[in-house]
Amino acid sequence: MERTLIIDSPKKLNERIVINGWVSAIRDHGKIMFIDISDRSGTLQTVSSSKESLAMGDVLELVGVVKVRPEKTVNSKIPTGAVELDIEKITILEKSHEFPFDMGGEDLNVSLETLLDFRSLALKHPKIKAIFKIQEAVVQSFRESLKNLGFTEIFVPTLVPSATEGGAEVFKVDYYDGKAYLSQSPQLYKQIMVGVFERVFTVAHAYRAEPSVTTRHMSEYVSLDCEMGFIKDFSDIMDVVEMVVKDLFSTLNEKCSAELTLYNAKTPLVSENIPRIKMREAQKIILDRTGRDNTKEPDLSPEDEKEICKYAEEEYKSELVFITHYPTKKRPFYTYPSKEDPEYTDSFDLLGRGLEWITGGRRINSYRQLLENIEKWGNKKEDFDIYLQAFKYGMPPEGGFAIGAERVTMQILGLKNIREASLFPRDMQRVDIKIPKEKQDAKR
Amino acid sequence: MERTLIIDSPKKLNERIVINGWVSAIRDHGKIMFIDISDRSGTLQTVSSSKESLAMGDVLELVGVVKVRPEKTVNSKIPTGAVELDIEKITILEKSHEFPFDMGGEDLNVSLETLLDFRSLALKHPKIKAIFKIQEAVVQSFRESLKNLGFTEIFVPTLVPSATEGGAEVFKVDYYDGKAYLSQSPQLYKQIMVGVFERVFTVAHAYRAEPSVTTRHMSEYVSLDCEMGFIKDFSDIMDVVEMVVKDLFSTLNEKCSAELTLYNAKTPLVSENIPRIKMREAQKIILDRTGRDNTKEPDLSPEDEKEICKYAEEEYKSELVFITHYPTKKRPFYTYPSKEDPEYTDSFDLLGRGLEWITGGRRINSYRQLLENIEKWGNKKEDFDIYLQAFKYGMPPEGGFAIGAERVTMQILGLKNIREASLFPRDMQRVDIKIPKEKQDAKR
Repeated sequence: MERTLIIDSPKKLNERIVINGWVSAIRDHGKIMFIDISDRSGTLQTVSSSKESLAMGDVLELVGVVKVRPEKTVNSKIPTGAVELDIEKITILEKSHEFPFDMGGEDLNVSLETLLDFRSLALKHPKIKAIFKIQEAVVQSFRESLKNLGFTEIFVPTLVPSATEGGAEVFKVDYYDGKAYLSQSPQLYKQIMVGVFERVFTVAHAYRAEPSVTTRHMSEYVSLDCEMGFIKDFSDIMDVVEMVVKDLFSTLNEKCSAELTLYNAKTPLVSENIPRIKMREAQKIILDRTGRDNTKEPDLSPEDEKEICKYAEEEYKSELVFITHYPTKKRPFYTYPSKEDPEYTDSFDLLGRGLEWITGGRRINSYRQLLENIEKWGNKKEDFDIYLQAFKYGMPPEGGFAIGAERVTMQILGLKNIREASLFPRDMQRVDIKIPKEKQDAKR
Repeated sequence: MERTLIIDSPKKLNERIVINGWVSAIRDHGKIMFIDISDRSGTLQTVSSSKESLAMGDVLELVGVVKVRPEKTVNSKIPTGAVELDIEKITILEKSHEFPFDMGGEDLNVSLETLLDFRSLALKHPKIKAIFKIQEAVVQSFRESLKNLGFTEIFVPTLVPSATEGGAEVFKVDYYDGKAYLSQSPQLYKQIMVGVFERVFTVAHAYRAEPSVTTRHMSEYVSLDCEMGFIKDFSDIMDVVEMVVKDLFSTLNEKCSAELTLYNAKTPLVSENIPRIKMREAQKIILDRTGRDNTKEPDLSPEDEKEICKYAEEEYKSELVFITHYPTKKRPFYTYPSKEDPEYTDSFDLLGRGLEWITGGRRINSYRQLLENIEKWGNKKEDFDIYLQAFKYGMPPEGGFAIGAERVTMQILGLKNIREASLFPRDMQRVDIKIPKEKQDAKR
């Protein structure tokens, strides 16, 4: 007999079916035993009158008959809660070891450390699984939106010849008898590809040798990157960001409402046009509102980011806000200086719920200007050979943006630590398992 | 005025439009000049009577009127070949340097070395661009097929704690004060995730420190990986492979016929059921056909792979063929030994046009058996902590497969070297630019 997915069981009332799945709850009522079975499609209550020695996590094949569940025991929380399976035969496909903590509750009440030490088990909990259904939707929605706007998907390398974004926070790789580095972002390659396909996007891994442990950073993350040519100015890029973000929220509400409900989460409120505020203006607004004078600072502090988000929500009914025109010195060498004031750049961050979600801007597309900036920023032009080549042979006015997939997932669900939004998070202290203490100290 | 995409220009006959794009050909006829302009959507002939100093690669904005092209000059090869643009105004957005080789021919007649040394330029050639439209379709079709079969997309790390597949061909990373490695495949993580989502796939980067330069291997490549639980036996996996491959060929014929035509390429002929031949049988068939006795060899040689493909095409009208039951010793520790004969495994390769396209099989899902094998294969169980954990807590019978995106692209288009199918290929000798000779020698 062919296996029936649990979600399809209500359609097979009074029929004999085969179910495959994991034991996700056991309620022993003496003479009879209720066993909840879960597969990729859902959860079903099954009833057995024989005394089987079953445990949480056991992998079973069951043969039984689908019956209407007695009305008072109907569980409206699960789609199959109106039926149950009268078990005729149980085959144990694989026994599970005893779980080290309770996996049966609505929440998984364990520390972050346990959550990660027992990652392969913890990921099976419905509330943890939900995070990665959201993450999947974030990535798929990003790709769909951009495909519809004529973007080509590209696959760019992560082994790179030099520390491209300048910083020291780069991982070095033993590359045959030489050295290579892990890419800090697909930035340079996506820019090159504007010269080829005009509009490109990529879902890439990015690596940062963060020398500290924060709740918002990891050593490896998924970067959703997009870049487009023939822009008039950098508002074209923010327009695309707006579309991508609004598509994402519709997708989540349409396809992931169950997962959002588990976290009591709502997609952010957005106004028809997301407000766009210059950084210097934002600082003035913050000064007015709080008396905090950061108007000379070259960037918004985490506190400032929270405050300006509060302002945008109150003033514009938007939980998202663009902050634009960051100072030239604070941005990478390729950022386009504003025509009105070259001390500032045609760049933006999209902040959401107090944290940066997306960063982007227009880039310099003149070969000569880039060459100058590479030197000004203290880099060597030999390290940018293939990149500079792209600008020699005709690069249109262009720009783009990048979204951290885990960051957005974390912010939408209101998670406290970005590690919760990564299947197998890496940081200074952990690659799957905890790194022994003596090896943890960063080099700087 | 809003920009018009070139593909839409025939709809705007006799209208004044704005076009953005690159100069892709110049034909100077004395009094008038024909300039082909290309954007992401296509190519358009434009006509100018003023003497502009233009060069290949220049980035232009043109204002002009769309006219019917004189019948005898209509170019049926390009969709916009029935109209042309009478230029009224040319704005040069960015000048190009002079091209170092001819980019105007139907083929790009340069050596592999030049193709890679001038990668950012060469990628703009229509025939090179086509390769990456095919690659995009390969990846997107893979994802679509599996989404339709209930698979969840996952994002797994590439920084890993140990050389997972055993071999020496692994890149070491300076990881803070310790060491990490670059993943040779997402294998272990996708298996873990079967315990969570039952059916998963991932588009991952994989890294092999190949100590030699061949036409079929690179140091970094894109691996399309899929894994599924609750299989009856490994034929279930081959069934999914068949679906994925057939979907891919329909997608390519539907969406990439222009690109296939550029290469005079056809998607492989496949029989309704792709033949499945045991490796030992294949060796006997080869002995019968060629007199070559490799029946004691533990694997098919490249010559054998070509011969068995020839056989499948002649006998079954299929350019693809499954070879099954490879010897246990030749496969990784997690491969499931066949019940009939544990010297052989429930594994397969899908060969196409003389080369391996896909490799897969059933995996061991018993914790104890895996533990035994890890030791038998000379690995340390401490290196597999999170992986083994997944098998402790109930892993269903499972298996999967992996497709090399560049390999398949290369085989479909009949490219001679896999580097042509990678945007920025990496090998022992090259990371963007050629590595100086003294650093090229491999460590082994």
